[in-house]
Amino acid sequence: MLYFDITEYRQRLNKTKEQMAKKGLDALIVTDPANMNYISGYDGWSFYVHQGLIIFEDKDQPVWFGREQDSNGARITTWMDDENIMGYQDHYVQSQTVHTYDFVADLIKKYQYDHKTIGVEKDNYYFTAQCYEHLQNGLLNTIIKDGGLIVNWVRCIKSVKEIEYMKMAGQILEKVMETAVNLIEPGVREGDVAAEVYKAMIKGAPDFTGDYSAIIPIMPSGKRTTTAHLSWTDRRYKKDENVLLELSGCKNRYHAPLSRTVITGTPSRELENISKTVIHGLNTVVDFIKPGILAQDIEAKWRESISGSRVVKESRIGYAFGLNYPPDWGEHTISLRSGDTTVIKPGMTIHVMPGIWTDKLGFECSEAIYVTQKGCETFAKISRKLFVK
Amino acid sequence: MLYFDITEYRQRLNKTKEQMAKKGLDALIVTDPANMNYISGYDGWSFYVHQGLIIFEDKDQPVWFGREQDSNGARITTWMDDENIMGYQDHYVQSQTVHTYDFVADLIKKYQYDHKTIGVEKDNYYFTAQCYEHLQNGLLNTIIKDGGLIVNWVRCIKSVKEIEYMKMAGQILEKVMETAVNLIEPGVREGDVAAEVYKAMIKGAPDFTGDYSAIIPIMPSGKRTTTAHLSWTDRRYKKDENVLLELSGCKNRYHAPLSRTVITGTPSRELENISKTVIHGLNTVVDFIKPGILAQDIEAKWRESISGSRVVKESRIGYAFGLNYPPDWGEHTISLRSGDTTVIKPGMTIHVMPGIWTDKLGFECSEAIYVTQKGCETFAKISRKLFVK
Repeated sequence: MLYFDITEYRQRLNKTKEQMAKKGLDALIVTDPANMNYISGYDGWSFYVHQGLIIFEDKDQPVWFGREQDSNGARITTWMDDENIMGYQDHYVQSQTVHTYDFVADLIKKYQYDHKTIGVEKDNYYFTAQCYEHLQNGLLNTIIKDGGLIVNWVRCIKSVKEIEYMKMAGQILEKVMETAVNLIEPGVREGDVAAEVYKAMIKGAPDFTGDYSAIIPIMPSGKRTTTAHLSWTDRRYKKDENVLLELSGCKNRYHAPLSRTVITGTPSRELENISKTVIHGLNTVVDFIKPGILAQDIEAKWRESISGSRVVKESRIGYAFGLNYPPDWGEHTISLRSGDTTVIKPGMTIHVMPGIWTDKLGFECSEAIYVTQKGCETFAKISRKLFVK
Repeated sequence: MLYFDITEYRQRLNKTKEQMAKKGLDALIVTDPANMNYISGYDGWSFYVHQGLIIFEDKDQPVWFGREQDSNGARITTWMDDENIMGYQDHYVQSQTVHTYDFVADLIKKYQYDHKTIGVEKDNYYFTAQCYEHLQNGLLNTIIKDGGLIVNWVRCIKSVKEIEYMKMAGQILEKVMETAVNLIEPGVREGDVAAEVYKAMIKGAPDFTGDYSAIIPIMPSGKRTTTAHLSWTDRRYKKDENVLLELSGCKNRYHAPLSRTVITGTPSRELENISKTVIHGLNTVVDFIKPGILAQDIEAKWRESISGSRVVKESRIGYAFGLNYPPDWGEHTISLRSGDTTVIKPGMTIHVMPGIWTDKLGFECSEAIYVTQKGCETFAKISRKLFVK
């Protein structure tokens, strides 16, 4: 059932331990479901209750903790021995009297790490303010530090096998995008297109099916394209209206996202101008990306390439992505913006996403790429153009 | 675009303010996306960045804060005036140097609430340990208390219109479940069934399409049914193997979840016995639910009804559900278990879900119900049985 050889999981664990050592952490509580999966293989929709992995510097396997009824899920999907799978009793679940992190504090004591320094992922969705408070109150002799993004940064450079899964996601993405572009027509309900988009995403390719993506298909039309994260409704597409498509393929939790824009009729001069500028900028950036440059150089190149146009782009133009769970396929590490001095390296995977949302309309055209020894490659072959229907 | 009259949103806001007053809160920061939607109408997939509503006791509208590129989404989907929509600059997004809650602390100061008492949703996924820390550091003169679940408890009793949306979700659910049961056969790939399940969920009913549900279709088979939250893979169903289906319809973010079990051939004696016991228990419980009893009485009734059988059920047998976003359609208020003394009232909506997961197999048969004046009704009509294919 494992998606990778155990040796690959062990390498990931060791790299994480190296980073923990640099930060002076004796243990790390991992709550990001993608980080949990990356280290242990754990793959289940159980992150709506508190769960995690504890990486102890002197233990060669992490310890999984989660709800008792999910512990067989850990037995099935991870490479860990039974003794390292710790189910907690159900009365901890969404209780208003006890908290799972009382249990976690006891675990830390059981492993005699309560006089040591442990890290937590302080800004992760699944490590709430209350988790932190209960951990602090339960471990008065422990130094608790921020260990956020340690695993995310290890994830940043993908292995050959990871890139392979992302290429499979790219194959799915091609089908998904084709489905959406083909079906959008004036008179058709947005939701009916979304239904076929979902089907294509899960049906996948002839040889393999797909997984759910960490972000839903974002596919607003008309006025709703003036913002980045609205999606379909019951309304029917009208003539001469633009539709944003930010979609993804997903395989073994690895993504290949992409955005394109469709116009159901004749584009306005404004839309045509924006699309020309953005596509020129995107082409320039994709040609530019190679090992050795900095993340901020990519954004600077973008800005230079659109200078003289009327396009204004205040937000970052891309981010690292890969393995993930809702609510985000982004990895929260690299952002393509001024001030991000990450050195670009082979194996990094970036969604170059210079979305434009004005008060009148939106336009999106992006590429998901992986960095090679000499430049970069896309995960899918989809024309960079405004799709006129 | 609003799903409810503004008067209904105002009532919700006022009920929330009453509860805030009881807890001595002058303001409440709402980060749960379902709570945000419930109070303001806000509906977008932007909860992967920090966002929220601030309810001030002396202001007749909440204040929305979120990423600048999502602020048009707030203008489109909420009932609030422009002056109450506060977009923050993009450099706050997933930054390793600044944090959105520095911005939020400044907002609290701007509204002159920094010498008052404010509540936060301390155990919500979208209020991380780091949010709390930055808020505390930015508001040294403010008393910050736990205001978690205040809105969730207001949400507990549904209005007529909310029940209407949940019935629409129930209509979708009937199609979704029928699709899954019909397609599961030995030799068919799990992912191909999942693809049709997704399509049915979004295509919806003839008169309206559906929305994405807050939990993916949970549909493991064989060995993977020994745990609660695994789903489809690329494998093909075999003969004589059981398949769990925990699926949902969703409309306007309101859910109707349900679980059933399919066996592709002949059930083992163990599976038959478990199914008889669980269905008997479920029938007993659904007949028993009415206003005036306590949540824990329902669980006691269940336990009584299965006593003498070999079925062991340690976890809660149900929970409140309704409006929601990933990762959970549950509302984190009522749990059907010993110790929950919530008085059952008309308009409450509960997923009675006595799932059984042994080390050999799983069995699920549940009902989503709403409490009426005299008893309860289900949201969908789907036979309570083990589906033998």
